[in-house]
Amino acid sequence: MLEIDLDRRRVQVRRLEDGKSWWEHFDQLHIATGADAIRLDLPGGDASGIHAIRTLQDGIDLRREVDEKKPQHAVIAGGGYIGLEMAEGLLARGIQVTLIQRSSHVMKTLDPNMAAPIADALRKAGVELYLDEPLRGFETKGGTVRAVVTDERTLPTDLVVVAIGVRPNSQLAQQAGLALGEEGAIRVNERQQTEVEGVWAAGDCVESFHLVSRRPVYVALGTVANKQGRVAGINLGGGYATFPGVVGTAITKFQDLEIARTGLQEREIQELGWAYVHDTIESRTHAHYYPGAAPIRVKILAEAESGRLLGGQIVGGKGSAKRIDILATALHAGMTAEEVAYLDLAYAPPFSMAWDPVHIGARMAKKKV
Amino acid sequence: MLEIDLDRRRVQVRRLEDGKSWWEHFDQLHIATGADAIRLDLPGGDASGIHAIRTLQDGIDLRREVDEKKPQHAVIAGGGYIGLEMAEGLLARGIQVTLIQRSSHVMKTLDPNMAAPIADALRKAGVELYLDEPLRGFETKGGTVRAVVTDERTLPTDLVVVAIGVRPNSQLAQQAGLALGEEGAIRVNERQQTEVEGVWAAGDCVESFHLVSRRPVYVALGTVANKQGRVAGINLGGGYATFPGVVGTAITKFQDLEIARTGLQEREIQELGWAYVHDTIESRTHAHYYPGAAPIRVKILAEAESGRLLGGQIVGGKGSAKRIDILATALHAGMTAEEVAYLDLAYAPPFSMAWDPVHIGARMAKKKV
Repeated sequence: MLEIDLDRRRVQVRRLEDGKSWWEHFDQLHIATGADAIRLDLPGGDASGIHAIRTLQDGIDLRREVDEKKPQHAVIAGGGYIGLEMAEGLLARGIQVTLIQRSSHVMKTLDPNMAAPIADALRKAGVELYLDEPLRGFETKGGTVRAVVTDERTLPTDLVVVAIGVRPNSQLAQQAGLALGEEGAIRVNERQQTEVEGVWAAGDCVESFHLVSRRPVYVALGTVANKQGRVAGINLGGGYATFPGVVGTAITKFQDLEIARTGLQEREIQELGWAYVHDTIESRTHAHYYPGAAPIRVKILAEAESGRLLGGQIVGGKGSAKRIDILATALHAGMTAEEVAYLDLAYAPPFSMAWDPVHIGARMAKKKV
Repeated sequence: MLEIDLDRRRVQVRRLEDGKSWWEHFDQLHIATGADAIRLDLPGGDASGIHAIRTLQDGIDLRREVDEKKPQHAVIAGGGYIGLEMAEGLLARGIQVTLIQRSSHVMKTLDPNMAAPIADALRKAGVELYLDEPLRGFETKGGTVRAVVTDERTLPTDLVVVAIGVRPNSQLAQQAGLALGEEGAIRVNERQQTEVEGVWAAGDCVESFHLVSRRPVYVALGTVANKQGRVAGINLGGGYATFPGVVGTAITKFQDLEIARTGLQEREIQELGWAYVHDTIESRTHAHYYPGAAPIRVKILAEAESGRLLGGQIVGGKGSAKRIDILATALHAGMTAEEVAYLDLAYAPPFSMAWDPVHIGARMAKKKV
């Protein structure tokens, strides 16, 4: 698609085979243009050996290069979800990994005290980690990357993965005159309709409504895109469905360390100017006397006075991270920390403690309300 | 404690060392007498080699007998939580296990279609399984059990575990004149107070309030007992706390098969006379292309018309069962199946599908509302 003409309700399309283009009328239009990996315009940035990971093909290309060129060393720029996954994958292939992070801690969607054990795990796995060091450029030779440059150092490398996030692919919508939100994603209502009737949008190109902050938010995640796509499809087909919104849930892992978050983190709550309390507890994934129990750290954030749950973060061993769904569900329901502390959660020694770590976290946070 | 005299607010106690007994005055009394394993009065039932598993000492005694007498064959009466755990434990010690079950399916707290894969797993693990065969008695020789007798057959054995449930140990309370519920457990209010002021009770000897059926229920589980004990303790000490009630959550496993349930099962809903819908779906614990994905079966029950979630059951491989906490939390919140279908649950390929199996189950059940 080349252009959207909302007034005449038509789109200009081009057939890739022969380059021929024409205008096509629409009754209903669905925009699902997704997101692109952010690529910085840096010196040497177009050299070969530099990868951004967004599509399946990106992954295939990276794997092929690893298989063929057998790089000894890789630098990953960005310690978020993709950066961590890439670190795990490259380490598993015997490649030495250096990770540079623009800000002061990896996994910026978690608070610093929850990100600390992740940095520890990266270092323990042999990752050379440099925090507070934004990517400044690349040294190249013969069109191939040779080193990554930060303010502090030059890191010789055979391979670079730039994993510094995505941005909505919303140019088409913008050129058509559709409203975009602060982060450049398309504004939609609960039915996934843009401000123009019969023009729908869903997935990584749109804004979502955050049920905790009660503000629009940009979340580019597959599970959200799936739900929104379903809602848009039902409405586009003449049915009726609404997407209730998100609470900011996300999950990943680095080797044996599971990581999850939901709701608002401290930085987000501070930006809203809300008064809050929080506590972080250490427990075990299940009864200590049953084999396989691992440490788990749970952080709970709640609104001061009301005690309303605002968010939670979990970092720990096997069996830790999916517990975030308890907190995500509680956020949807608008529960207080007190209510979470007495939920009838499943307990048996292979699965939990009599007080689930989530109970304990909620109880401790509640004490501060 | 021998007796409670509520009128004079005193209890008769006996010192075990010398058998001396006397009356002790109380201002506040806490009754935490727990539960006992149900023992049937059957021919040969007091023979050695017959075990009920309730206390730590019961477990130690059973293990000692296994270590010392090296039984070749064990019969377990009862296919509930304890029966399944015992089957797993005895199989792990190389003992041939036969399990007899009074009713038509094991794990009666699940519906038949969810219990079927558990029976399959038992048989696959080598357990000889007899359904619809209540325990009728024992054959003994020289005071030791030699066989278990049902209506259908006589099962020669060296060892018997009777795991047919527990009943509240509420005789003391009953003799004192305190009200008991239908299942013989002590009636308490939200603060864990009995009908007499300053007399509290908590744990396996009391009734709980079921938030879905809105009726009293008897649940003898450690996590419930812990929460009630905390509430009773706070109140007894002059503070204020309430126990919100239970939703009927329970979890166990047999070898690699994880099992969980919450809310009301079909039988319970039918007894209430409520109109309901349900669906059972098959999915995978996480993305099929990520190693370790296992089958998972999820059943969701919802009220007809309103769509209110009434219960859920999960049976599947590693990573399945703790997902029940999503449904438990949703039951606390009074959510509909529709709301569950759009919860912002955590997704990444090592942890889930883009639509969590719980989403899918809720969506399919909702279609029938």
